[in-house]
Amino acid sequence: MSERGGSERAESTRTRLMEAATAAFAEKGFAGTTTRDIAAAAGMSPAALYVHHSSKEELLYLISLAGHRDTLRTVRDAIGSSDDPAEALHTLVYEFALHHARGRRWARIVNYELGALSSEHLEQIRGLRRETEAQVRGLVERGVRAGVFRTEDPRMAAVMLLSLGIDIARWFREDRRWAPEDVARGYAAAALRIVGA
Amino acid sequence: MSERGGSERAESTRTRLMEAATAAFAEKGFAGTTTRDIAAAAGMSPAALYVHHSSKEELLYLISLAGHRDTLRTVRDAIGSSDDPAEALHTLVYEFALHHARGRRWARIVNYELGALSSEHLEQIRGLRRETEAQVRGLVERGVRAGVFRTEDPRMAAVMLLSLGIDIARWFREDRRWAPEDVARGYAAAALRIVGA
Repeated sequence: MSERGGSERAESTRTRLMEAATAAFAEKGFAGTTTRDIAAAAGMSPAALYVHHSSKEELLYLISLAGHRDTLRTVRDAIGSSDDPAEALHTLVYEFALHHARGRRWARIVNYELGALSSEHLEQIRGLRRETEAQVRGLVERGVRAGVFRTEDPRMAAVMLLSLGIDIARWFREDRRWAPEDVARGYAAAALRIVGA
Repeated sequence: MSERGGSERAESTRTRLMEAATAAFAEKGFAGTTTRDIAAAAGMSPAALYVHHSSKEELLYLISLAGHRDTLRTVRDAIGSSDDPAEALHTLVYEFALHHARGRRWARIVNYELGALSSEHLEQIRGLRRETEAQVRGLVERGVRAGVFRTEDPRMAAVMLLSLGIDIARWFREDRRWAPEDVARGYAAAALRIVGA
């Protein structure tokens, strides 16, 4: 077996473990999940799991890190998509809402299991969350300076916009009244009202 | 010991158990909590706990039931507080936000641990949630009919308003920038914007 083939196989095993961990954490919560559950769901032995990851906390951290980086990228891309603050905010909230409606399983883990991370990992994740919030706040402030938005407290407006998007992962169900795109459209329109566009 | 004294003592024990369970579920999640943890926190033996409650699921159900009834009462009181839909909505969102900022420990349990309830208990709790949502939607529709609110989808507006309030329990911290009253004020103002008042 070539070295490359070995590293590709290890990579695919890690992906499989992260998927199994995501499913297990989503179903039973982090505290209710054992490494044995994750190994079984990934079709391997607990000993084989430890070859790849030192603990279930490490798996949670990797899921959380990937999720937060993905969210920050979505927010930055939306902000860079237009010079018009209203257009950029509409895109941002549309994409953020869509992201949380479609990916609600990981979104729940990423947002509700922060307390299970080690303090070092938590600090890194908090840094990504602060940066995401600062990006949204910066956009709202830019809109206020440009006279396009009217809101007394851009910081609270940014918190509300992110909060609305995150909580979609709690209440949204695929089989109900709205498709993810309907929610995204409604939320983007409401976001413009919240900032007084 | 009189019968009355005995029943008062049993009542106080049940209250103590519900408080201990709320603290344990908030700290470790429902799945991560054992009946032994709850009994220890309430200063009693696991056997003594079973005299009062058949399972930790029953404790979760009682916490959830009390929380949802309390929330529905808050919503109904606010709606009844004024004939002016804008004034009633302002009061409703102010009180709902305050309720979730101050009581975020129980609010998290009540909203994030629904999946741990038995199907019978879940059905009852879902009924209370549907009624709460119907009350808020009814108020938004009344405002639209009266020409005071302008929103295309009163149902989605109601979902957003409740979602904003519920998610406060996730992000709010007592020691940060805002007091519960600041958040309540900011959210009540945003609610009127969302419904196009």
